Amino acid sequence: MMSSTIKVGIIGYGYMGQIRARNIQAHSAMELAGVSDPGRAAEIQSLNVPVYENWEDLVNSDIDAVIVCTPNFLIPEIAVYAMHRKRHVFCEKPPGRNYSDIKMIRDAELADPGVKLIFGFNHRHHPGITDAKAIIESGSLGGILTLRGVYGKGGGYDYHTSWRNNISVSGGGILLDQGIHMLDLFRYFVGDFVEIKGMRGITAFNIEVEDNSVVILRTAKGQLAQLHSSATSWKHLFRLEIGCEKGYAIISGLLSKTGSYGRETLVIGRRPSPNEKMAVGNPREETIYYDHDPSWDIEIGHFAECILENKPIEKGTSIDALKVMQIIDEVYQAPIVHMNK
Amino acid sequence: MMSSTIKVGIIGYGYMGQIRARNIQAHSAMELAGVSDPGRAAEIQSLNVPVYENWEDLVNSDIDAVIVCTPNFLIPEIAVYAMHRKRHVFCEKPPGRNYSDIKMIRDAELADPGVKLIFGFNHRHHPGITDAKAIIESGSLGGILTLRGVYGKGGGYDYHTSWRNNISVSGGGILLDQGIHMLDLFRYFVGDFVEIKGMRGITAFNIEVEDNSVVILRTAKGQLAQLHSSATSWKHLFRLEIGCEKGYAIISGLLSKTGSYGRETLVIGRRPSPNEKMAVGNPREETIYYDHDPSWDIEIGHFAECILENKPIEKGTSIDALKVMQIIDEVYQAPIVHMNK
Amino acid sequence: MMSSTIKVGIIGYGYMGQIRARNIQAHSAMELAGVSDPGRAAEIQSLNVPVYENWEDLVNSDIDAVIVCTPNFLIPEIAVYAMHRKRHVFCEKPPGRNYSDIKMIRDAELADPGVKLIFGFNHRHHPGITDAKAIIESGSLGGILTLRGVYGKGGGYDYHTSWRNNISVSGGGILLDQGIHMLDLFRYFVGDFVEIKGMRGITAFNIEVEDNSVVILRTAKGQLAQLHSSATSWKHLFRLEIGCEKGYAIISGLLSKTGSYGRETLVIGRRPSPNEKMAVGNPREETIYYDHDPSWDIEIGHFAECILENKPIEKGTSIDALKVMQIIDEVYQAPIVHMNK
Amino acid sequence: MMSSTIKVGIIGYGYMGQIRARNIQAHSAMELAGVSDPGRAAEIQSLNVPVYENWEDLVNSDIDAVIVCTPNFLIPEIAVYAMHRKRHVFCEKPPGRNYSDIKMIRDAELADPGVKLIFGFNHRHHPGITDAKAIIESGSLGGILTLRGVYGKGGGYDYHTSWRNNISVSGGGILLDQGIHMLDLFRYFVGDFVEIKGMRGITAFNIEVEDNSVVILRTAKGQLAQLHSSATSWKHLFRLEIGCEKGYAIISGLLSKTGSYGRETLVIGRRPSPNEKMAVGNPREETIYYDHDPSWDIEIGHFAECILENKPIEKGTSIDALKVMQIIDEVYQAPIVHMNK
Repeated sequence: MMSSTIKVGIIGYGYMGQIRARNIQAHSAMELAGVSDPGRAAEIQSLNVPVYENWEDLVNSDIDAVIVCTPNFLIPEIAVYAMHRKRHVFCEKPPGRNYSDIKMIRDAELADPGVKLIFGFNHRHHPGITDAKAIIESGSLGGILTLRGVYGKGGGYDYHTSWRNNISVSGGGILLDQGIHMLDLFRYFVGDFVEIKGMRGITAFNIEVEDNSVVILRTAKGQLAQLHSSATSWKHLFRLEIGCEKGYAIISGLLSKTGSYGRETLVIGRRPSPNEKMAVGNPREETIYYDHDPSWDIEIGHFAECILENKPIEKGTSIDALKVMQIIDEVYQAPIVHMNK
Repeated sequence: MMSSTIKVGIIGYGYMGQIRARNIQAHSAMELAGVSDPGRAAEIQSLNVPVYENWEDLVNSDIDAVIVCTPNFLIPEIAVYAMHRKRHVFCEKPPGRNYSDIKMIRDAELADPGVKLIFGFNHRHHPGITDAKAIIESGSLGGILTLRGVYGKGGGYDYHTSWRNNISVSGGGILLDQGIHMLDLFRYFVGDFVEIKGMRGITAFNIEVEDNSVVILRTAKGQLAQLHSSATSWKHLFRLEIGCEKGYAIISGLLSKTGSYGRETLVIGRRPSPNEKMAVGNPREETIYYDHDPSWDIEIGHFAECILENKPIEKGTSIDALKVMQIIDEVYQAPIVHMNK
Repeated sequence: MMSSTIKVGIIGYGYMGQIRARNIQAHSAMELAGVSDPGRAAEIQSLNVPVYENWEDLVNSDIDAVIVCTPNFLIPEIAVYAMHRKRHVFCEKPPGRNYSDIKMIRDAELADPGVKLIFGFNHRHHPGITDAKAIIESGSLGGILTLRGVYGKGGGYDYHTSWRNNISVSGGGILLDQGIHMLDLFRYFVGDFVEIKGMRGITAFNIEVEDNSVVILRTAKGQLAQLHSSATSWKHLFRLEIGCEKGYAIISGLLSKTGSYGRETLVIGRRPSPNEKMAVGNPREETIYYDHDPSWDIEIGHFAECILENKPIEKGTSIDALKVMQIIDEVYQAPIVHMNK
Repeated sequence: MMSSTIKVGIIGYGYMGQIRARNIQAHSAMELAGVSDPGRAAEIQSLNVPVYENWEDLVNSDIDAVIVCTPNFLIPEIAVYAMHRKRHVFCEKPPGRNYSDIKMIRDAELADPGVKLIFGFNHRHHPGITDAKAIIESGSLGGILTLRGVYGKGGGYDYHTSWRNNISVSGGGILLDQGIHMLDLFRYFVGDFVEIKGMRGITAFNIEVEDNSVVILRTAKGQLAQLHSSATSWKHLFRLEIGCEKGYAIISGLLSKTGSYGRETLVIGRRPSPNEKMAVGNPREETIYYDHDPSWDIEIGHFAECILENKPIEKGTSIDALKVMQIIDEVYQAPIVHMNK
């Protein structure tokens, strides 16, 4: 039986694992019960929690849940193993290399209905996104017509050496690593797509996965969406522009540890009314500024709450993960074209 | 034989015809020799030049050149007629309803090698574009990898009544009317595309042509491009982001008579060098502001110069018009999907 | 007796005179009846109205009103002369070289109560200003606490040759020529000042009047204001920040013929309420964009209306002119300090 | 004799004391040897260093240096006491309540030439400031003509309860607490002022010290400067605009723990050359973005280096502190005017 404190193990103690350790320590109903990452023993030491040489031992120790923060190719095996042992599982995104990886995880979840399985799509909890969602759901902007998303980062001079660009480890390139968040947000705002066309290319780096991908999509209702996911955006860039019948919402900038995506802001504009001739093409806009990112804590909090109260996961479900991976798999049907310089 | 003053007739005296009249009057080697637009006799009166009830009479009067500023469906007939009578021809864009229209004009041009035929792609002469082009051609940003263009306007409350949205008159919707400029700029920067995928929809207006179109394209070299052309952009928007190996150029805002697209600016960013760790994701940027739009005068000047010195047209050739129309025709293969509210 | 069309003469046909000619021609109840500017005969010719060699003849011709667009030193004599002959008078700003100049004009007005006298403080009619005024008067921002104004231009390489910097012609430097508008706006928002401290300097140009002035002021109520008026602002700059009890209003950019001050915008921010902890220091803001400047037409319209309906002038009165000149005279008590390089 | 590790005690463990503790722990040549703050025993506990009930005991323990982070009124006594005991002293700003306080500290320093005394004017080490300083010193912008500084914060709903607004504890209001940094930066860029005029008021809060102050200043050379220091700036605001002969530098935004002042940026503009007619009033600008604030560490590093290598303090000297306090004292000659609502 579940005590009121959730004992959590973390597998993988890189960038994300370290963020998760802090989230758990900050959560009143969670306790960090062990960490496993053979390559980072020294960093883990300072946490003052049990360290496990191999992740199976951590899973089999006295814990209630695991957070899987490993490279993509390990996620399915670990998640499946843990769920079979009745551990609740939090998978960082991208949740695997491809649709089959997620399918395997999803099947394990269905086999063990008592476990909670959540995927880390933290962008849904960013303040600019949650405010935009609330405003749109209020109906004051009318229905959504179009989505335009750009998510770009500048790959560093050692970008080609990252495991994220090793196809057997990661399963894909920038679209799977970063663009997936924007696709998940698209789904968050308009649901599923019935038509998907994409292209991808290797334009600047000596790697085997795409460093740029452009995608266009349409929902059954007829809404159009467009994504550019790029690793050659020398200026870090996050911008989601949502066009509605009576106005628009633009989220740009993204709170992050380094601040490199710029201040997160939400701009709301409303289509001028028929008698505002002067404003045609220039609606007045409202801008909201955000300096504090609660997304990581909200996400962990949602996981904890669903475990403690035995409620179904609502944001970051396996269905969300499956569906977004389906989009990526579809884009990945297109060949990767190497740029010819 | 050509005198040193070019006598020009204007056919169609709407928004563009009036701009062209001013351009001609401002040009020292041109003379406005007549105007024909049966529906606007009163406005033409004030010009103090001969008025022609029908355009054939104007073409057959003592003029050297005509500027065709009519709705799209009339352009081919007039242009062909005028070239057969050895008049130089300036066609406003969009230069017809479809590829066949332009092909017909192009054939007439080939049949009369003495005439100069130019198409009005004035955006190539906007200061932000010409400066970006010069900087990129200097090589300091390296080769172009990606293009991202958005061109949007907010259709007014009477948008459904415009001839631009009557398919038999215009041949298409916002992509043909406005997006065409961005596609022409794409070609200006990277040349031809070998792969084109598009979608179009009718999302907000009660019209028979698309009010939104999203397009992705790839050149033979492997460069990727992406366009969103929209008539539901309640804020007028022009933004072209050019991603290069060593930096980027962003043209945003667009000088126009009403100012509604905002001040035209060009931003140049350069990828930080390996030793600028602090700047990763945040390159320093240079911003250039433009308050004066010389594009219309440059375009007319180019036409005049090619006529007077019997030189081939360089910008806005029939090949440019054909090729951009080919792209649009390809996108127009896709069905128009009505949004289902 | 006044007919329903006001016959107007313009004295001085420089930058401002030409704007005024257009305003009059655009006004249905006004008629341009003559222009006098010996140095610009050619430009006036094209207007197709009577040209007067000397301004007295124009004043004495069959006209109802004159607009005085001459250099400052001529304004008082012309205005007084015209009022004595019962002509309504529109004086461009700055309305003279100093307080005595305005006093002389004001006395002539008092002596002829039938004439309407207006001074050209068109900034009060700019859309950003009128909207800010309306919002503040609605009370939703609470009372005004502080004003911060910057008005700057970049003097050109021939700045030292301008009559505006010849003290016997102009009476003063940038504060009198441009800063006066901001001081007039200060008065428009908070009324009179009881304490005024200023400094002025000649920092960059070889001229005899100030090219920079800084001024601080206080109203009887205790509101604080601050102005920087500069001719060494290489970027043209207009910015008025109004701090209120419950928020603020910022007008920046200024619509002008050349666009060089940037798009005019009004930003309204509201102090976060006690329960909006996250927003402390970062209130959400509303931005309004303006692309059309009606100020010149409104001003001429106000003049026309007051004449036709025999109503007192409300904006741009001689009292407004006197009071703003009093502030400048007080700042001009301070010595001009030449920068020592 | 000085070992190669400097043992440091911190007196006062509020906002600044906590920042300083982190700085010291991050510095390889420093060791946190004790903290004293009777009111914050619990927070200090977690540091795992000796806690002192009273600050004298900490000063007299085996330490080399103290950092004084107490409210203003305590600083002089502690600093003087510590220097008499040969402790190096780091005083947070504002370094006292008034000129006499600093004079007392300065006298103690002169009496003990072996001790290093530094004042915490960390703004000089902000990246936007240091880059601007370097660019100006390179000479490419020419000499400085004008300075315009705004430093504003929005006092919270409990602002009247802060010790910073209790005159006997703090000695002054927002000018002394926050504006002092801008005045110090003014001095950093142009040196001393020979003419100072100021006003101050209590406009919004129920406090006994100023919540707004406006100041104008002139150097002996003739440069003009202007400051607005405000506690009623509901949007947090830091902006320093430096006008030069051949261009300008604008630092706006300020890196801080909460991010509320916005991203720190430096904009450099250059006066267009005589042949760039189109750019008059709109110079191209270079923008540099900063996301990382090294100022605290640099400052502590400078202190450590001067101690270890027995070099004189260069930035944040007692002369700097004295001179900036002299300016404030001069402004404080002006009466505080309560706004009359």
